[in-house]
Amino acid sequence: MVKAYILVQTEVGQASEVVGRVRDIPGVEEAHDVTGPYDVIVRAHAEDVDALGSLVVARIQRLDGIARTLTCPIVNI
Amino acid sequence: MVKAYILVQTEVGQASEVVGRVRDIPGVEEAHDVTGPYDVIVRAHAEDVDALGSLVVARIQRLDGIARTLTCPIVNI
Amino acid sequence: MVKAYILVQTEVGQASEVVGRVRDIPGVEEAHDVTGPYDVIVRAHAEDVDALGSLVVARIQRLDGIARTLTCPIVNI
Amino acid sequence: MVKAYILVQTEVGQASEVVGRVRDIPGVEEAHDVTGPYDVIVRAHAEDVDALGSLVVARIQRLDGIARTLTCPIVNI
Amino acid sequence: MVKAYILVQTEVGQASEVVGRVRDIPGVEEAHDVTGPYDVIVRAHAEDVDALGSLVVARIQRLDGIARTLTCPIVNI
Amino acid sequence: MVKAYILVQTEVGQASEVVGRVRDIPGVEEAHDVTGPYDVIVRAHAEDVDALGSLVVARIQRLDGIARTLTCPIVNI
Amino acid sequence: MVKAYILVQTEVGQASEVVGRVRDIPGVEEAHDVTGPYDVIVRAHAEDVDALGSLVVARIQRLDGIARTLTCPIVNI
Amino acid sequence: MVKAYILVQTEVGQASEVVGRVRDIPGVEEAHDVTGPYDVIVRAHAEDVDALGSLVVARIQRLDGIARTLTCPIVNI
Repeated sequence: MVKAYILVQTEVGQASEVVGRVRDIPGVEEAHDVTGPYDVIVRAHAEDVDALGSLVVARIQRLDGIARTLTCPIVNI
Repeated sequence: MVKAYILVQTEVGQASEVVGRVRDIPGVEEAHDVTGPYDVIVRAHAEDVDALGSLVVARIQRLDGIARTLTCPIVNI
Repeated sequence: MVKAYILVQTEVGQASEVVGRVRDIPGVEEAHDVTGPYDVIVRAHAEDVDALGSLVVARIQRLDGIARTLTCPIVNI
Repeated sequence: MVKAYILVQTEVGQASEVVGRVRDIPGVEEAHDVTGPYDVIVRAHAEDVDALGSLVVARIQRLDGIARTLTCPIVNI
Repeated sequence: MVKAYILVQTEVGQASEVVGRVRDIPGVEEAHDVTGPYDVIVRAHAEDVDALGSLVVARIQRLDGIARTLTCPIVNI
Repeated sequence: MVKAYILVQTEVGQASEVVGRVRDIPGVEEAHDVTGPYDVIVRAHAEDVDALGSLVVARIQRLDGIARTLTCPIVNI
Repeated sequence: MVKAYILVQTEVGQASEVVGRVRDIPGVEEAHDVTGPYDVIVRAHAEDVDALGSLVVARIQRLDGIARTLTCPIVNI
Repeated sequence: MVKAYILVQTEVGQASEVVGRVRDIPGVEEAHDVTGPYDVIVRAHAEDVDALGSLVVARIQRLDGIARTLTCPIVNI
């Protein structure tokens, strides 16, 4: 199991709609609008790094209103 | 009451029009064109953090010519 | 009540020690090591924006091993 | 006369002390602690671009606790 | 007289066309394609900071193929 | 001979298609999807710096789905 | 098995020494000096994401001359 | 022959001293203090990419007061 924070930049004016859409995706644990250089911060999990990559590229990035995402996998060191 | 600076990147060639439009929004105290990595710097206030978020996403980001905004709330520490 | 994610860059080689120290601070809900441009992501809360600023500057930034922090307040818009 | 915003990153834990020191410099109109990628935002003026450069490099950057500054001159276009 | 370097990011695939167009603008002294985070670096001059701002926003940013510009005025300190 | 890594940001949702297209370009040695601020990392070579610039601007940037590229030439120092 | 590129910023003047030191670490496949915003690009592998995090924080970041690292895990999507 | 712009960030308060020191290095054609995210912009040349890398790492980065450099080779495309 891999967990990650995903820092999302949305198209202008789309932050609140994007949060609602992201929360419906399986594997997403929580999603919130934030202020600062990112617009939405998501916490999600997947079976491994490849599945996490697919979750981000094939599901989250395909939503309307997403401009960029930055995936930060959680590591136990 | 929360006050904030909002650092704005505009679409290319739109900086002067954006300043005029931003100044008309209630809660905006001042707005200026600048050179550097940002194109316009705005100072605004709202009742609380949520209202500030709404001011930025629902009002400023909905203007024509806005590419990205970065909200920096003022804190008294 | 204001909630926020705090994206932390640590001094090189200090990521795992920093996570342990951050978790002991009152108001911190969770903290994890991550890979990418940030080293630790923290979720915390405070009574208002000023108290959040104080939590970050007077408590988290005073820990050994912190290089930079980026506070992203959660907003409901 | 040239006016500018100066976006300041401080050494960790130094944001509130820096604001006090910056406000004492002639030419500084206002200075506030903020959250986000910058720690302090300053508004200042000088006679021309060269004097503005000197104000930043010879006065503000010489203060204890300053890590980086980013000068954004105001332009009327 | 104010001189400046202007660091330009172009639309993908447009770097060489942009250099040619920029060189035709009065006030531009030189322009070169470069590799790295910027695509074209321009050196230009104008009568004062406001005229420099107009040169960038009203002339350079209006060219086809420009995505972002970052103006760095030269200072003598 | 000049070798380089090219760090690529793709349009959202396009990372896997871009990797396939990049691998077909002569001079490209390897290309992989990655997570983080870049989406694809490419290793390529060309006869000299000018040919490397042409490879990036005239071949890689012309592919569908490319948003930005950052070329990092390898140096032996 | 997880593979990754690690983008390294070194202390000024240390790039060539760092490359030599990094190449001696088990799991590192190749390391090169580059020009641009990063100074050294490393390719490495580890058993899983946690082991990759340990390789970076406990081995690479502990070397003399390292200022920042940015880990980009390779994903198959 | 390879030409390049080198974008320099200096230690705080060191910009004017750095310009003087950089201008004395063989291969440096011009160097100016600037405002914005960089403090000094240098134009230089070297015999090839490797010699350019050596000029930056072994000469410019060894000067007192340099924090970071970003080399942007000029390309003819």
